Amino acid sequence: MKILLLNPNTTEALTDRMSEIAQDVAGSDAQIVPLTAPRGFPYIASRTEAQIAGAISYEMLAEHSHDADAAIIAAFGDPGLIGARESFDIPIVGMAEAAILHAAMLGERFSIVTFSPVMRRWYADCSRAVGLDGRFAGVRTPDEHFQDVGRAHLDLRSEIVKLACDAVKHDGADVIILGGAPLAGLSQDLQKDIPAPVVDPIAAATVQAISLAKLTSRQVLASRASKPIPKSSTGLSACLSDVLARGQAL
Amino acid sequence: MKILLLNPNTTEALTDRMSEIAQDVAGSDAQIVPLTAPRGFPYIASRTEAQIAGAISYEMLAEHSHDADAAIIAAFGDPGLIGARESFDIPIVGMAEAAILHAAMLGERFSIVTFSPVMRRWYADCSRAVGLDGRFAGVRTPDEHFQDVGRAHLDLRSEIVKLACDAVKHDGADVIILGGAPLAGLSQDLQKDIPAPVVDPIAAATVQAISLAKLTSRQVLASRASKPIPKSSTGLSACLSDVLARGQAL
Amino acid sequence: MKILLLNPNTTEALTDRMSEIAQDVAGSDAQIVPLTAPRGFPYIASRTEAQIAGAISYEMLAEHSHDADAAIIAAFGDPGLIGARESFDIPIVGMAEAAILHAAMLGERFSIVTFSPVMRRWYADCSRAVGLDGRFAGVRTPDEHFQDVGRAHLDLRSEIVKLACDAVKHDGADVIILGGAPLAGLSQDLQKDIPAPVVDPIAAATVQAISLAKLTSRQVLASRASKPIPKSSTGLSACLSDVLARGQAL
Amino acid sequence: MKILLLNPNTTEALTDRMSEIAQDVAGSDAQIVPLTAPRGFPYIASRTEAQIAGAISYEMLAEHSHDADAAIIAAFGDPGLIGARESFDIPIVGMAEAAILHAAMLGERFSIVTFSPVMRRWYADCSRAVGLDGRFAGVRTPDEHFQDVGRAHLDLRSEIVKLACDAVKHDGADVIILGGAPLAGLSQDLQKDIPAPVVDPIAAATVQAISLAKLTSRQVLASRASKPIPKSSTGLSACLSDVLARGQAL
Amino acid sequence: MKILLLNPNTTEALTDRMSEIAQDVAGSDAQIVPLTAPRGFPYIASRTEAQIAGAISYEMLAEHSHDADAAIIAAFGDPGLIGARESFDIPIVGMAEAAILHAAMLGERFSIVTFSPVMRRWYADCSRAVGLDGRFAGVRTPDEHFQDVGRAHLDLRSEIVKLACDAVKHDGADVIILGGAPLAGLSQDLQKDIPAPVVDPIAAATVQAISLAKLTSRQVLASRASKPIPKSSTGLSACLSDVLARGQAL
Amino acid sequence: MKILLLNPNTTEALTDRMSEIAQDVAGSDAQIVPLTAPRGFPYIASRTEAQIAGAISYEMLAEHSHDADAAIIAAFGDPGLIGARESFDIPIVGMAEAAILHAAMLGERFSIVTFSPVMRRWYADCSRAVGLDGRFAGVRTPDEHFQDVGRAHLDLRSEIVKLACDAVKHDGADVIILGGAPLAGLSQDLQKDIPAPVVDPIAAATVQAISLAKLTSRQVLASRASKPIPKSSTGLSACLSDVLARGQAL
Repeated sequence: MKILLLNPNTTEALTDRMSEIAQDVAGSDAQIVPLTAPRGFPYIASRTEAQIAGAISYEMLAEHSHDADAAIIAAFGDPGLIGARESFDIPIVGMAEAAILHAAMLGERFSIVTFSPVMRRWYADCSRAVGLDGRFAGVRTPDEHFQDVGRAHLDLRSEIVKLACDAVKHDGADVIILGGAPLAGLSQDLQKDIPAPVVDPIAAATVQAISLAKLTSRQVLASRASKPIPKSSTGLSACLSDVLARGQAL
Repeated sequence: MKILLLNPNTTEALTDRMSEIAQDVAGSDAQIVPLTAPRGFPYIASRTEAQIAGAISYEMLAEHSHDADAAIIAAFGDPGLIGARESFDIPIVGMAEAAILHAAMLGERFSIVTFSPVMRRWYADCSRAVGLDGRFAGVRTPDEHFQDVGRAHLDLRSEIVKLACDAVKHDGADVIILGGAPLAGLSQDLQKDIPAPVVDPIAAATVQAISLAKLTSRQVLASRASKPIPKSSTGLSACLSDVLARGQAL
Repeated sequence: MKILLLNPNTTEALTDRMSEIAQDVAGSDAQIVPLTAPRGFPYIASRTEAQIAGAISYEMLAEHSHDADAAIIAAFGDPGLIGARESFDIPIVGMAEAAILHAAMLGERFSIVTFSPVMRRWYADCSRAVGLDGRFAGVRTPDEHFQDVGRAHLDLRSEIVKLACDAVKHDGADVIILGGAPLAGLSQDLQKDIPAPVVDPIAAATVQAISLAKLTSRQVLASRASKPIPKSSTGLSACLSDVLARGQAL
Repeated sequence: MKILLLNPNTTEALTDRMSEIAQDVAGSDAQIVPLTAPRGFPYIASRTEAQIAGAISYEMLAEHSHDADAAIIAAFGDPGLIGARESFDIPIVGMAEAAILHAAMLGERFSIVTFSPVMRRWYADCSRAVGLDGRFAGVRTPDEHFQDVGRAHLDLRSEIVKLACDAVKHDGADVIILGGAPLAGLSQDLQKDIPAPVVDPIAAATVQAISLAKLTSRQVLASRASKPIPKSSTGLSACLSDVLARGQAL
Repeated sequence: MKILLLNPNTTEALTDRMSEIAQDVAGSDAQIVPLTAPRGFPYIASRTEAQIAGAISYEMLAEHSHDADAAIIAAFGDPGLIGARESFDIPIVGMAEAAILHAAMLGERFSIVTFSPVMRRWYADCSRAVGLDGRFAGVRTPDEHFQDVGRAHLDLRSEIVKLACDAVKHDGADVIILGGAPLAGLSQDLQKDIPAPVVDPIAAATVQAISLAKLTSRQVLASRASKPIPKSSTGLSACLSDVLARGQAL
Repeated sequence: MKILLLNPNTTEALTDRMSEIAQDVAGSDAQIVPLTAPRGFPYIASRTEAQIAGAISYEMLAEHSHDADAAIIAAFGDPGLIGARESFDIPIVGMAEAAILHAAMLGERFSIVTFSPVMRRWYADCSRAVGLDGRFAGVRTPDEHFQDVGRAHLDLRSEIVKLACDAVKHDGADVIILGGAPLAGLSQDLQKDIPAPVVDPIAAATVQAISLAKLTSRQVLASRASKPIPKSSTGLSACLSDVLARGQAL
C-alpha cells in the first residue's frame, strides 16, 4: 500500500520529520511517499494561506495520486481537504480531521494544544468543519507567538505539558490533541506527564489512511454519484486540468 | 493483538458471522475473540433493551478485558459505550460510532440504511450521540418490520440497494452505512450497485479498534484523570464489582 | 393516586428522606410508595453506574408498577428514564428532567448547584438529554469531592449558598436547581439566602408526577404506537421479562 | 389558591370555555379567575397581534395579579410571556410552553396539530422559544384557513384526528399537542382515536400553574436578582405604570 | 427618499442626536424623519418594556409610514421588529439587527460593548434573534449600572475603549458594535483607540435602510404571500386598526 | 468611490453583465471596475473549483485593490471570501453573503433558487458559512443540469418562477434569492410573478459594498489586531507575495 504524505507547506524539514513518524507507525503496512509543496509558505497560519496552499495541494495530488492508495494532507487545519476528497478517487485524510475523529473514539471531549496563539482561530475552525464542535473543549496555546517553528518541539516542552494539564483540569478534556506539524512526534514523550491520552495528528492520520485504504477502493470512489461534473479550465497545471476535465458524466 | 468482539445480543449465529468478517478484515494484525451475551435479548431494538444489554456488556468486559488490547461492542446502537469507555482501560469501539466516524472521512454526509423501521429512532440517536448529526442525512428502511433477522441479508438485498440509491439521490448522502448486525457482510456484494462508498460497520469497527490499540496503551488509559472514582457495589457480578471498586484515586 | 418513588441507589436513608419530602409535597393528593434498589451502588456518580442502575430500575418498575399511577426515578441524572418511559404504561418522571422543566417555567436560564465536582459531567449531560442546554447556565460545585454523602446537606450549607449566589451573579442564572439526592430537602432552608427561586428536584418531581397522572391514563399510554415491539428474553427477572414480552403488536 | 386565566384575545366565549376546562382540572385545588382582554383582537394569529396583545396582558396582570397565586396566559403562542415572568412576582404559565414541557415528560418528540395553516409559523416559533426545538416534530394543519374559529372544534374533528395520526406515523411524534384556544376541550374526545397521548394546553397550563404556585411563593419571586430595574413611564395604565416603577433596587 | 427614524423611547434628546447622525450619514440620499414615542419609557432596558414599546411603535408606523420609503426602529434591541416587518409594506430596519449584519460583513466575530450591565441579557437576545449567535463573541459592559443615560457618551469614554480592547484581545472579536442609543455618535471618536472596526448602529441602520429602499418597493412588499391575514380589532389607535384590517386576502 | 467587481470565473460575458447591473445600481455613488479571472474555470460549480478560484482572486485583489474602496467577489458561493477579508484592507463583499444578509432584513426565512442541481450543495454551504442556516429554507433547482450557462436567464424563466413560487408556498420562504451569476439581472423581470421580495445578489452586493465603504476606511482595517502575521512566500505572484509579506506586526 502506498500513501502520499503531502505537506502543503514548503518546509522540507517538516516533511521529513512527519514522514519518519508516519513510516514508523505504518511499519510494513504501507509505504509513505513524502511530498513537499513546490511553492507557497514555509508554515501556513491563516485562512488566506490555507486557501492558496489548498489549491497547490491539488496540483500535487494530480501529479502523484494516480498510483497511490490514499493521501494525507499533512498540515493541521486540512487545507483543501473538502475539494480534494470531492475530486480525487482515493481516500484523503486531513491531519486535523483524523486527529479529531480518532480522539472522539478515546473519550467524550477533546482539546487542542498548540505552540502559538496565532493558530487559535484556524484550529477552532477545524472542529466546526468536522462537525464535532459539540465535543470540542477549546484550544490552549502559549500567550506569545513562538517564532522559530523548527524549535517549537524542543523549547516549548514544559509549557505544552502545562497547557495540556490545564485543558484536562479546567476545560474537562478527556483527550488532548497536539496540533500543528511542528509538534509532530512529541506526543510519546509528553504522554507520561499528561493525565489523558495524547493524540499525535500525524500518527492518527497514518492509521486512518491505512484503515480507509483497506476498506475502500479507487474504483468505488470513481463511481460516486456525488463527484463534481467534468470541467475545462485554463492556466492550471496540466495534470490538475486533466483530472478536473475527466470528472464524472452527469 | 487481541480484540474482543462483544455481541451484546444473545444470538450466537450473529456473533459468528460478525467475528468471521472481523477476522477477515484484521488478517494477521489481530486475533478476534468472539463473545456472546449470556443473557438478554436475541436482537436489541429499543432503548430499554439497550439499557439492559449495555449493563450486561460490562460484565462481559470485566470478565474478558484483562488481557485484551481493545474491544468492539458489536451492536449497531452501541449499548453501554460511554460507560464502558469511562471505566475500562482499553480502547472501546462502538459499531455505530466507528461506522459513522469512518464514513465521515469518506464524504461529507452519510445515511444509514437498515432492515426494519423499528430501528429508525434508535439509529438516529447514534448520530446525535456521536455529535455528527449535522452531517447525518437520515435513516432509510423498508416500510414493514422484517421479522426474520437471520434472513435479512438474504431476502432484503434488492430493497436495501434501492433504499441506498434513494438516500444518495434524494437525501444527498455521500456515504452509505449498512446499519445493524443482520446486514453485516453484505456491503461488498452490494457496493457495485450503489453509487457511493458503502460502509460495513463491523469492518469499520475492526480497523478502528486496531488503529486505536496501535496508538494507545492500557497504561495510558489507566492513568486518565477523567475516570470515575472507585465505587463499592452489591449484587453485581464479582468481576464487574472488582473493576468498579478499583477505579481511580481522586 | 399511588406514586412510586424509586431510588435506583441502594441507600435506604436517602429513600426515606426523599419519600418524606415527596409525601409532604403530595399531601392528600397522592400516596408515595418508597422503593430502594435491591442491588447496585450506594450512590450513583458515573455513566457506568447509571447504565447498570437504570437496568435495575426496570426490574423494580416491572415488579411494582402494575397498580401505580406514576413513578419517580429518584436519582438526579435520571438513570434509565428514556427506556422506562418507552416500555412502561404509566407516566415516568425523572428527578433531573422534572427539576429542569419546572425551572424552565420560573425563569429563562437555570444553573445546577451540587455537592461534588465528580457529578459535574453527568449533570451537564442531563440538560442536553432534556434538550434545554440552550438555557443551561452551568453546574457549580465545591472544588473537592465531598466523601460523606449522608452529611452533605449538613456540612456544605454555606458553600452551597455561595455557589448558588455565584451562579446568579456570574452565570446569569434566573433559577437554581439543587442537584443530587443528598441535597434533597435543603432548598426551603437555603431559599432566603439565594436571590433566585431554588428548585428542589424531589419536590418538582412529585408535583410533576401528580400533574401527569391527573391528565394521562395507563390506558392511553398502553395504546401508544411508539412502544417497542414485544421481545422475548433470557436471564432477566421474571417480571421484567413478562413486561417486555407483552410489548405492543406491530 | 387563586389562578388568573388571562385570555389576551377579546372573545369572551373562548375565555368561558377555557375557564370551564381549567376549573374542571383544578377541582378544589384552585379557583380559576377568568379575564378577557378589554381591547385587541378576537383571535391572535400573527406576531404583530401577539406583540400588541402581550402588552395589553401586562395591564390585565397589573390590575389583577396582586392577590393571585399564579397566572395563565391563555393563548397558544404565549404573547408577552417572557416580560410577564420578568416583571410580575407570581408564577406565570404560558399555554404553549406548559403544553410543550408537559408533553416532554410523556415522550421524546411532540407535534402540534391545529386548525389553520395561518398559525403554522407562530406555533413553530413557540418550540424554539421554549428551547425544545430539537424534540419538535412539526406542526400539522388543514391546508385551508378555517374562518369560523368558534366552530373549529365541531367541524374539524375528523380532520384533526387524521392530522394527529399522520404526525404519529410520518413525523415520529410520541405526543400530540392540540394547539390553539379554539381546540380547547377537544383532547379527551379525540384521545381514543389517536395512538399517542394528546395534550390539551389549557389542562396542562392549569396543572402546571398549580404545581408552580405550590412550590414558589410571591416573596421568593419578589427578591429575584434578575428582575428589571424600576422604571418610570408615561401614558401607560396607572396600575402597570406602578408595577414597573416599583421594580427592584440595583 | 424618506426614512422614518422611529425612537420607541420617549426621550426626545436621544431622537435628536440619532437623527442628526442618520442625516449626516444619509446626506442627500435620504431625508430622515424623526419620531419620538408619544408614551412609554425614557429608555427601554427590559423585555417587558420592549414588548410595550414595540406595540407603541406600530401606532407610530401606522400614522407615519404611508409616504415613507423605509423605517428605522431606533432602539438597540429592536422592539417590535418582527411584527413591524410582517405588517408594514416598507423595509423596516432594526438598529441592532442592522449593526450585527453590517458587522458580519466586516469580520467573522463581533462583540457588543455597552454602558450598563442591565442591558446584557436583552442585547445577547439580539444576536440569537438575528440568528448569528454562532458568530457572537459576547457583551462587555461596566460592572455597575450607569444611571445618567444622557451622559454615558461623555463620562464612559475611557471605560468603553477598555471594554472594546478586551473584547478584541480576550474574546476574539473582529468587529465591535457600540450598543445602545446613548452611545450613538461615539464610534468615530473611539475608533482610533480600538484595533477593530467599530460599528455605530444608527449609522449602520441608516445605510441599510437606504440600501433596502433602493432595491425593494412598497408594491413588492404589499404583494407578499407571507403577510398576516386581515384582522379586525377594538380599542387600538384608528390608524393601526386600519392597517391591520387591510392585511392581505388569503 | 471605486468598487472592484472581481469575477473569479474566466467568462468575460458574465463580468460584463454583472458590471452593468452593478453600475446601474451604484449610479453616481461609485465607479464599478470590472475584473475577470485570468485563468481558472468558465463557471465555478464545485468546492475544488472554489478553492482554486479563491486563490486566484487573491492575485487579482493584490494587483488591483490598492486604490479601490471596496471589492465584490462576484461569484455566488463567495470563493476565498474569508481569507480576502482577513488579508486585504478594504471591505470585501461576497455575492452570496451579501444576498443572504440583505434578504435577512426583508423577512425571516429565505430560499435560494438557481439554474442547476449541481449547485445545490455548494449554495447550501453558503448559508452555513454566513451562520444563518437557521433561517435558510432551502435551495430549489431544476431536476436536470442546464448546460448552457449563458442562456440560463433566457430559457429557464418560467421554471425559475415556478421554483420560487414553490419555495414560498411549500418551504415557507419570505424572501427569494436568485443564486448564481447566470441569473444576474433577472430579478426585476421575475418579481411581478413571485409573491415574495426577490433579491438579485449582484445588486445586493453593490449596495452593501457602497454601505461598507461609506462607513469603514482602509486605515481602520489596516490597524485591525486580528490580521494574520506577515509571511514570506515563494512562487506566488509578486503582488500577492508583497501583500502577505507586509501583513501586520505582532
